[in-house]
Amino acid sequence: MDTVRNYKILDCTLRDGGYYTNWDFNKELVHTYFKSFNELPVDYLEIGYRSSPMKEYLGEYFYCPIYVLQEAKSLSNKKLVIILNEKDVRPEHVKDLLEPCKDLIDMVRIALDPEYLGRALRLAEEIKKLGFEVGFNVMYMSKWKQYGDFLNQIKEVDAVADYFYMVDSYGGVYPQDVKEVINLVKERTKCKIGFHGHNNMELALINSLTALEHGADIIDATVTGMGRGAGNLKTELLLTALNASQGLKTDFNALSAVVDVFERLQQDHGWGTNLPYMVSGANSLPQKDVMEWVTRRFYSFNSIIRALYNQKEKVQDNQKLPLFSPAKHYSKVIIIGGGPNANLHKTAIKEFVRNLEPDTCIIHASSKNAANYEDIQVDQYFCLVGNEGHRLENVFKNLVNFKGQCVLPPYPRKMGTYIPEALVGKSFELSNIDFTNTLKDSHSALALQTALQLNAKEIFLVGYDGYQEKAITQLEKSLSDENEFLFTAFRKHSSIALSSLTPTNYKNLPVTSVYSYLE
Amino acid sequence: MDTVRNYKILDCTLRDGGYYTNWDFNKELVHTYFKSFNELPVDYLEIGYRSSPMKEYLGEYFYCPIYVLQEAKSLSNKKLVIILNEKDVRPEHVKDLLEPCKDLIDMVRIALDPEYLGRALRLAEEIKKLGFEVGFNVMYMSKWKQYGDFLNQIKEVDAVADYFYMVDSYGGVYPQDVKEVINLVKERTKCKIGFHGHNNMELALINSLTALEHGADIIDATVTGMGRGAGNLKTELLLTALNASQGLKTDFNALSAVVDVFERLQQDHGWGTNLPYMVSGANSLPQKDVMEWVTRRFYSFNSIIRALYNQKEKVQDNQKLPLFSPAKHYSKVIIIGGGPNANLHKTAIKEFVRNLEPDTCIIHASSKNAANYEDIQVDQYFCLVGNEGHRLENVFKNLVNFKGQCVLPPYPRKMGTYIPEALVGKSFELSNIDFTNTLKDSHSALALQTALQLNAKEIFLVGYDGYQEKAITQLEKSLSDENEFLFTAFRKHSSIALSSLTPTNYKNLPVTSVYSYLE
Repeated sequence: MDTVRNYKILDCTLRDGGYYTNWDFNKELVHTYFKSFNELPVDYLEIGYRSSPMKEYLGEYFYCPIYVLQEAKSLSNKKLVIILNEKDVRPEHVKDLLEPCKDLIDMVRIALDPEYLGRALRLAEEIKKLGFEVGFNVMYMSKWKQYGDFLNQIKEVDAVADYFYMVDSYGGVYPQDVKEVINLVKERTKCKIGFHGHNNMELALINSLTALEHGADIIDATVTGMGRGAGNLKTELLLTALNASQGLKTDFNALSAVVDVFERLQQDHGWGTNLPYMVSGANSLPQKDVMEWVTRRFYSFNSIIRALYNQKEKVQDNQKLPLFSPAKHYSKVIIIGGGPNANLHKTAIKEFVRNLEPDTCIIHASSKNAANYEDIQVDQYFCLVGNEGHRLENVFKNLVNFKGQCVLPPYPRKMGTYIPEALVGKSFELSNIDFTNTLKDSHSALALQTALQLNAKEIFLVGYDGYQEKAITQLEKSLSDENEFLFTAFRKHSSIALSSLTPTNYKNLPVTSVYSYLE
Repeated sequence: MDTVRNYKILDCTLRDGGYYTNWDFNKELVHTYFKSFNELPVDYLEIGYRSSPMKEYLGEYFYCPIYVLQEAKSLSNKKLVIILNEKDVRPEHVKDLLEPCKDLIDMVRIALDPEYLGRALRLAEEIKKLGFEVGFNVMYMSKWKQYGDFLNQIKEVDAVADYFYMVDSYGGVYPQDVKEVINLVKERTKCKIGFHGHNNMELALINSLTALEHGADIIDATVTGMGRGAGNLKTELLLTALNASQGLKTDFNALSAVVDVFERLQQDHGWGTNLPYMVSGANSLPQKDVMEWVTRRFYSFNSIIRALYNQKEKVQDNQKLPLFSPAKHYSKVIIIGGGPNANLHKTAIKEFVRNLEPDTCIIHASSKNAANYEDIQVDQYFCLVGNEGHRLENVFKNLVNFKGQCVLPPYPRKMGTYIPEALVGKSFELSNIDFTNTLKDSHSALALQTALQLNAKEIFLVGYDGYQEKAITQLEKSLSDENEFLFTAFRKHSSIALSSLTPTNYKNLPVTSVYSYLE
């Protein structure tokens, strides 16, 4: 396409983007992807992993069965690549995993922790025997200087690798660092050098261009930057920059066609950088947790950033609280969630509560509706998980006269602890969440466990509206799935009656009407 | 807050973000903005423009009336800044515009084209007399080397300016360019130097850090990068970077609070870079058009990029077509839009069309529903505006047997022209759009004008569903407003009956039912 270019470009959108879609992509998108790249100045397409069976659902492009590779081969005029996770593959697996790909795949890459370069070298030997090009994608380049053994061993890659990649795993390196590390590598190996940049600090482009300037031979990128966490160098940005600065021949019709389909997908999954990713990048903190926190919606950036700083300072948690050991018990407990129905039906719900007094109390799973119930004379408990401390400050203008008690998850809290000053003497932590091993830090888990501690015989949920299947977003879907899971776990664990007093879309939640209880 | 810092930071979110909201912001957001910045290591807040009355609606922060400045002053502990557009303000206006701000505002900036530095110097003298700090925001830094007079005159700013800013108007400069231009400036003036970076190429951070490294004294940024076109350096990115690398003391609670409210606003307005902005940045093309094209939805990235390349190559349009002068006339014309109702009711609509044959034809305003009508024996016309050429290729697998005619807007077409090869002999352009002076390049304008040319006496619209008020996005709202405008303009211009045969939310469109016409 362009003869003067002395470097290669590898697009790994399907492979790295799979972190957001569980490695499933619809056929139409895949066709557009291959068809568009046939017209673009890119040399390699990395389409996925090959892997032995794992114990969780992972889709088509995580396993890349042969029919997938055959289809890719038939659609594409590029060299095709797959990647292996070094930690999951031993040399004895290589033949089974890779022999079937022999005429379909051109390069096999190995993603590795620098600590295991030795193991990776042996793996690479086996791969090389099958005739593939081999790439080493070595993570954590910002910490390589601390790995003396690794640095000493780099020279051994010459014998087995075609490309030796520096991976900016945290997305926190600067052009100056790229230059330094590339020189460090060049002193040790004659292997061609690659760079895989993450975009936490919006430095992926300048780092990649700096790598090229200092002799890198291949650059990774993905369409719209789709990739784990904050994502990668954007293919369209790299091509546009090289087109304008070096005349790299680029078909912008093809480029915009493929960008278009991934931008639509991005609206559902929302990859790209944001404040939590910036903080983790700038401070070389792992992104895995951040990605989970960002994609679940009940942590504010604030809580996430607090958690990151706790990690950075190696503080597990900054506050140990007195245990929640309520003197009072109530046979009927109302749990109020964040749904609009808790507001819509509040008059009836308050009437219902008054009829049960004093043998009842309210637990606010979310503080969203708390102000609607401020005026009712009944004991009230507030679950302080995620961002609720701040939300409480917003909901109640003045916390000085706050009459309730706050309940927090067991110590240590991964997300750190924020308690408004006025509530310090009124806040307690649970010793444990009994009825579930997962999702222990969710609002619903905390509220249900609090009800158990209060010795509830019957629990009424209010404002657990759920979501209508049709209009549901990814985030709402995952929150809804989590609650369904917790309801099931709770009912398996306990014989306490659990029902919703207001309309709900949850399937595991029996419904009665609040109005049926009123005279 | 931090004593060692030898540079200043200016946040101009409200001023530059106003391009997306017409300079109106809700009170709650403004409060969060000032409250959060009180805790952040930022020195100046630029809150808007001051301006004489303009002939279009521009909101609160474009005029910054005194009560707005007073409120800002009461909420903020920072130095406050406003900016003037040099092209709109003469020295004799300064007293009226600025004297009332004397105790409220600390700095007045002037946004200027380097060509008019002389005029700006005289303006600055007047501003300085009132006791304000003065900043020069000089645009187009990537082209300064071509402005010899400007370079010679820079030394004169010493007398009147406190800050002399280099503005990367196109968002296309690289760190190397920043270094070069800053040295160019330093050779000519002792004035403190500022840098205002745009983020088209995701280079705003590295360019700003490079500016600081080479002696810049002040950096502009905005929360979430909110600002005209692709936007600016993100305040949260700058602070996170400086916090991690230099220990700049940053309250991440306050930072995430303000990021949070602007991220929510961003969901409605969608600022930030994308392929069209990258292309305009990389090639130093003006962003004003791009912003308009990107925020209206009926241009694909593809068309926008073609238009940008036409601009770059100074091609007005690449194709002059034969004029549309249809031999046949039809008294009843059906215009088919892109709404789902054109598919839902297609059986009835086709029956309706068959009953009218041969005195009728179909005009496809959008090709979206065209495949549904491929099998009906009636003359069909296709409006090729924006992306429709490509869409047509996707809708009809094989265009070789295409029987219709294509109609394009009058020459020259700002967005360029794309006609699928098979349709070249079947494509014609209108000589003019008669009934409206604006929105001439919209699907509906083209379809209605085509109906006029075909001598229609009665026009039936199909699949002009409009949008439900409740769920409408900004983009749908603007498309819907445009259509309402065109219907009104058309009915003012012509006595031809215009009605919708399928359900519609448009208010200016009389509805009849397609079923009422069938036996």
